[in-house]
Amino acid sequence: MINGNNIIACDYALADNESFKAFDPSTGAHLEGAFQKANTLMVNNALNAATAAFKVYKHVAPADKAKFLRAIASEIAALGEILVNRAVAESGLPVARLTGELGRTTGQLHMFANLVEEGSWVDAVIDTANPERTPLPKPDIRRMYSPIGPVVVFGASNFPLAFSVAGGDTASALASGCPVIVKVHPAHPGTSALVGQAISKAAKETGMPDGVFSLLFDDGYGIGAELVKHEQTKAVAFTGSYHGGMALLKMAQERKSVIPVFTEMGSINPVVLLPAILDSQAESVAAKYASSITLGAGQFCTNPGLILAVKSTGLDRFLSALGYAIEITPSATMLTTGIWKNYASLSDKIIAEPGIKLIAKSTAVNTEKANQSVAAIATVGASDFIANKKYSEEIFGPWSLVVVCDNIAQLQQVIESLDGQLTTTVMAEKDELSKHTGILNALADISGRVILNNVPTGVEVCAAMQHGGPFPATSDSRFTSVGTGAIYRFVRPIAWQDWDDSLLPLELQAANPLKIWRQIDNNLTKD
Amino acid sequence: MINGNNIIACDYALADNESFKAFDPSTGAHLEGAFQKANTLMVNNALNAATAAFKVYKHVAPADKAKFLRAIASEIAALGEILVNRAVAESGLPVARLTGELGRTTGQLHMFANLVEEGSWVDAVIDTANPERTPLPKPDIRRMYSPIGPVVVFGASNFPLAFSVAGGDTASALASGCPVIVKVHPAHPGTSALVGQAISKAAKETGMPDGVFSLLFDDGYGIGAELVKHEQTKAVAFTGSYHGGMALLKMAQERKSVIPVFTEMGSINPVVLLPAILDSQAESVAAKYASSITLGAGQFCTNPGLILAVKSTGLDRFLSALGYAIEITPSATMLTTGIWKNYASLSDKIIAEPGIKLIAKSTAVNTEKANQSVAAIATVGASDFIANKKYSEEIFGPWSLVVVCDNIAQLQQVIESLDGQLTTTVMAEKDELSKHTGILNALADISGRVILNNVPTGVEVCAAMQHGGPFPATSDSRFTSVGTGAIYRFVRPIAWQDWDDSLLPLELQAANPLKIWRQIDNNLTKD
Repeated sequence: MINGNNIIACDYALADNESFKAFDPSTGAHLEGAFQKANTLMVNNALNAATAAFKVYKHVAPADKAKFLRAIASEIAALGEILVNRAVAESGLPVARLTGELGRTTGQLHMFANLVEEGSWVDAVIDTANPERTPLPKPDIRRMYSPIGPVVVFGASNFPLAFSVAGGDTASALASGCPVIVKVHPAHPGTSALVGQAISKAAKETGMPDGVFSLLFDDGYGIGAELVKHEQTKAVAFTGSYHGGMALLKMAQERKSVIPVFTEMGSINPVVLLPAILDSQAESVAAKYASSITLGAGQFCTNPGLILAVKSTGLDRFLSALGYAIEITPSATMLTTGIWKNYASLSDKIIAEPGIKLIAKSTAVNTEKANQSVAAIATVGASDFIANKKYSEEIFGPWSLVVVCDNIAQLQQVIESLDGQLTTTVMAEKDELSKHTGILNALADISGRVILNNVPTGVEVCAAMQHGGPFPATSDSRFTSVGTGAIYRFVRPIAWQDWDDSLLPLELQAANPLKIWRQIDNNLTKD
Repeated sequence: MINGNNIIACDYALADNESFKAFDPSTGAHLEGAFQKANTLMVNNALNAATAAFKVYKHVAPADKAKFLRAIASEIAALGEILVNRAVAESGLPVARLTGELGRTTGQLHMFANLVEEGSWVDAVIDTANPERTPLPKPDIRRMYSPIGPVVVFGASNFPLAFSVAGGDTASALASGCPVIVKVHPAHPGTSALVGQAISKAAKETGMPDGVFSLLFDDGYGIGAELVKHEQTKAVAFTGSYHGGMALLKMAQERKSVIPVFTEMGSINPVVLLPAILDSQAESVAAKYASSITLGAGQFCTNPGLILAVKSTGLDRFLSALGYAIEITPSATMLTTGIWKNYASLSDKIIAEPGIKLIAKSTAVNTEKANQSVAAIATVGASDFIANKKYSEEIFGPWSLVVVCDNIAQLQQVIESLDGQLTTTVMAEKDELSKHTGILNALADISGRVILNNVPTGVEVCAAMQHGGPFPATSDSRFTSVGTGAIYRFVRPIAWQDWDDSLLPLELQAANPLKIWRQIDNNLTKD
């Protein structure tokens, strides 16, 4: 039984609002459950509860916060097949993918639990006093990160578990000490309801203040807008489209107070194929990229939507192998009818544009299912590409555009014409790399992550990950939304000057009771 | 001889534009020099040069960047008295203060040189590969901070050296690897011209790309607006008033691309006087605060503009001692006629407001000098204060409002009614502190720095400093504009995945050639 009530402060908010239903995108059929559209009162209640909870939650001991995060992971894991099956039904994504995503989601929660428990993430910096200094004595100053307050998280359509209700945004915000209010993505409300219940149960089991978590449903834009504009909201995290992200940023600009709004707005993730590897391995590179372009029906922020290469017989072989692989790629169910329509329309439109030449289109379309993706690739000359800004706009789905350059200098010009990206990739023979450092630097200049000889799809969840990039890939290239670094979006440093030792946070006390790494008078130490 | 030409790419841009003059605020007289108002062509030239220089400057070796920063410090130190005297003439601040500020300015440059040379600030994080992992092999990912691009710095009126042309914003941006374009504060153009020349000389001496530094004059708002809106600008740093900072933020919102804009907009820096210390030390606390309120004619972002206490005979003694000290405080020259007019008008206006009671006003006014500050203090009841939002607005100058509370609970309510602050302070006897943890937590909740038994004026430049705070103290509480942490406003992480070791930045190479601290597979090490 899916409970379609909004969750406010870890409890169901019973109401008789209008409701909406979930769909199976592969059939168009309604799924079980009716989801109550939240209203202004609920927004206020959720934020009042979060603001009150923040005063308590920010002081919860690291070990207890870790227990809470692990309890969420356990509750989600306990849902197991029920959750996976519901996510499959709502997203059209395969069971294996969602089973993996469930593991990733619980894994992220454990990762943040470990981070919080180890404790050094607070970046404690201590400069001790020198009362003898002239002309002025030097004070004792101790600084560490503290949470900023209630965070509004928007669920993403394309990761119903790992970037949704208990995804990386929620996990990092809760780990930092911030309460979370989730605006559910209407494409997977049932999945969201199940996970929301799991978080609420975990909060109660581990004695967290109720206001630490709320979850609101809406199939329109009203509730999201109210949440972003609410003065008690202290940060916003969003993963989705450029248009969605920009709309949120504009709303945030109407606020009286300025708050951090982190929007991850996708990108086209350019891939450079260098000449020698095209010569030696055109076919295997094509096979790798055919899989990457069509993985999850191309519905990844890191989908390789742009491939750059210099014309050569190697490139011809690559195009022919890639074209064949795309042609026989079976169609897949896209996440929503809206996404499917958008993909179909944008890919049809660009193919009709001057200079764009269709190379291949999947012919293996399942006509018995709805919202089926049709993978396609095309080529364009470098000067046409540079002249038409719209050719570098993201087409969300199994699509990639191959830019054919006359020479390496032109290829570099193409890179330099591009906006910010989440990732860039170079495919190369090892000994040709050092001849192309200009290209390598240009790739790093525009992206958050640069990859050698692999595909951009697949984002490792780890401390070194940077999932972010210069605008318009994100609204703030200084942060990541994947990996432990994601926590720093929701914290601010506080410095204590000449404070009484016993009243300092444990992390800053002289005896270092938590045994964390600290920088004391410019030396890193665990003393 | 003061050269009043704009500096573009470390060279004078000769032109025959309109010019403006500098004033001595203590006399109203013109000072030597005519400063060319910059124009749109100059803005474009400066940003084109900065963008081109960035490609080179970002790859300059840490040791060479450190040499550049130290050369700036040497060139500024070499100006010595000439610079101090000009700053005195333009600001009305005393020689001793500006001599100290010169030391602070060169000190900051050396601090960033040391930071860059030591190298660990890039926060290198390495997660090594595990090719055996199933179902997917684990890639090798290495991440570090890299500079974001040309930074526009606005000189602040109240620190003609330490927060101006070669102040903390410029020093941290240059240390990060970002070129800098300074929009000069029109109150001290001659000081700015001298420092701009020093930076240009240092850049040439140490072989930096010319576009690494430009300096533009304007006595209006046009050039600042063009700089903020320019698409090649990648970040903005500003210290000044709430209205000035908000105007810049609004301009930035008109940009096509979203960039970080860090504005430090001052605050009223609430000070809580707890009962026992008022009982035991009312007079000495009053003496300390009379100095802090009037230091530099009260023209500090951290000036204590609000004092909170519970009514008692101790408070009466404090007010009487503070009142006497304020009465005999000699007037001082304010930075500009505009600042003086604003102070005079706002302090007069608030004194006439309901519930506000003037306690003392300086009677020691120098009538032979212009723009003289008149220190003043007043009291207000807590409920009047809470009911009138405008009573908590900053009055830039030697002014402080004492809020008289009925009891500690009401005092806490007053704190909770306040907006974000750069600092908060508590004056207390050691053994009364633990009885008031609610107050202490409330102070930390609203501020970037909390101080015990001292004054907020005086901002130590060190690694642990947090000079920033929740909105409206700054536009982004997650960053500081003083101390080594200031560098993180201008950098973004880049992750390299499965990259060739010899092509990685030195900071990430396997052998750790720079011998910096790195986090490798979750362990901090210098290996």
